[in-house]
Amino acid sequence: MTNIPDSHPRKSSLLSRLKMVDGAKRGLLADSAMIAHGRGEAYDYLLGEKTTASASLAIREAAARLLHAKRPVISMNGNSTVLAGAEAIKIAAVVGCPIEVNIYYRTKERMTRLVEELETIREDLLDSSPPEEKDSISGVEILGLVSDGRIRGLEGPRSFCSADGIEKADVVLVPLEDGDRCEALIALGKEVIAIDLNPLSRTSRTSTVTIVDEVSRALRGILNELSSKPEPSPWDNDSALRGALEVMRNAHMRI
Amino acid sequence: MTNIPDSHPRKSSLLSRLKMVDGAKRGLLADSAMIAHGRGEAYDYLLGEKTTASASLAIREAAARLLHAKRPVISMNGNSTVLAGAEAIKIAAVVGCPIEVNIYYRTKERMTRLVEELETIREDLLDSSPPEEKDSISGVEILGLVSDGRIRGLEGPRSFCSADGIEKADVVLVPLEDGDRCEALIALGKEVIAIDLNPLSRTSRTSTVTIVDEVSRALRGILNELSSKPEPSPWDNDSALRGALEVMRNAHMRI
Repeated sequence: MTNIPDSHPRKSSLLSRLKMVDGAKRGLLADSAMIAHGRGEAYDYLLGEKTTASASLAIREAAARLLHAKRPVISMNGNSTVLAGAEAIKIAAVVGCPIEVNIYYRTKERMTRLVEELETIREDLLDSSPPEEKDSISGVEILGLVSDGRIRGLEGPRSFCSADGIEKADVVLVPLEDGDRCEALIALGKEVIAIDLNPLSRTSRTSTVTIVDEVSRALRGILNELSSKPEPSPWDNDSALRGALEVMRNAHMRI
Repeated sequence: MTNIPDSHPRKSSLLSRLKMVDGAKRGLLADSAMIAHGRGEAYDYLLGEKTTASASLAIREAAARLLHAKRPVISMNGNSTVLAGAEAIKIAAVVGCPIEVNIYYRTKERMTRLVEELETIREDLLDSSPPEEKDSISGVEILGLVSDGRIRGLEGPRSFCSADGIEKADVVLVPLEDGDRCEALIALGKEVIAIDLNPLSRTSRTSTVTIVDEVSRALRGILNELSSKPEPSPWDNDSALRGALEVMRNAHMRI
């Protein structure tokens, strides 16, 4: 994509930025997606661009709850698809759950592009996977094009979802969610596992489990944890958010 | 541009976001400009989206140093032109200094568009100004298309500048600068007045006077201060940065 030397201390952040620029050119992103990504960059900078101790606990809890859910689903938007589409599909393959494309600024064109993008990523993964993993990867459903479900409590296109995905799910893993939708899902009695770099956002404060971490690091972390088959715990989400804030507040001491 | 009610607590931030989306569509911005804007949004959110006490002092100091400079110049890029082009021209008219378009990802097309954009803004200002201000506004030079100067210490297109602008300037007001260029200007003995929402950035830590504030608020603030004809002071920039950090560190107490 470009030549950033391995030694560059912020290589991973710069590569993500390039993925976003590329994703925008390919029409996968909303107009304001790059701005949202920039906000994430700033918060991640304050986190030191690595997974904190409290985020590691949240990642483990997320893996546990996905494994113990009756009907888990992973909700993906433009940014999360561009930044970590492959990781999401790998998690879905291990958990045995569908992926649903669900976006805030819903257009048929972008929905189709994102479903196709995830299907392409799934094919690429299939080609590079060992034989014993191929069935589970090819079995990952990519939902979203058929809006036969509704998220009660929301109005208009933002209420659209898949009946076999978010509507019936008991646990929703949703990277980069907006506050309204998060609140609506919680009000419906679902568990929401959010990945959000801003520990002060409404989504962070509303979700059942908030992973304050960059989306590709968080999803890779969940994937790693799945293999250890963790058990759900009583979860104190406020404590996780305080942990993230504490790291951010001390950012000035790291420079 | 859109209908955001006056009562919305984050109206100003949302309007800026719309200006950026519009500026991107008109080809005024670099590929990663929206990401930079998003980073700014995040830091501004931590500041409470208002000018802090320490930023007010820096704004006053900036006004004083512009008024007392021998050859001041205002360096503008895509983001600052889109967000606060009119404010920059008004300051230039009062100070009697040129504006220079100077961008990191330099293409002839974008340079031309930005110069034309500022010329259009200048014309619009002229139409709406009282008679006694028209001469000073129409007298604001928009430099940048002729790269007959160099910033020594930088390589390639990033070293290009205007001989009558940045090259000969003793004081450079530069909203949203990159770290390398800021260091090069300082190394040449120039005073750099930077506007940067990240108090930990290299630009913030290198500049002579750093205004940690959103660019349009900062430039409006400078414009207001100019009329009181402030005097330069011995300036402790570290103290200004600490003031901003302190506000950000207490962001969690405001929610």
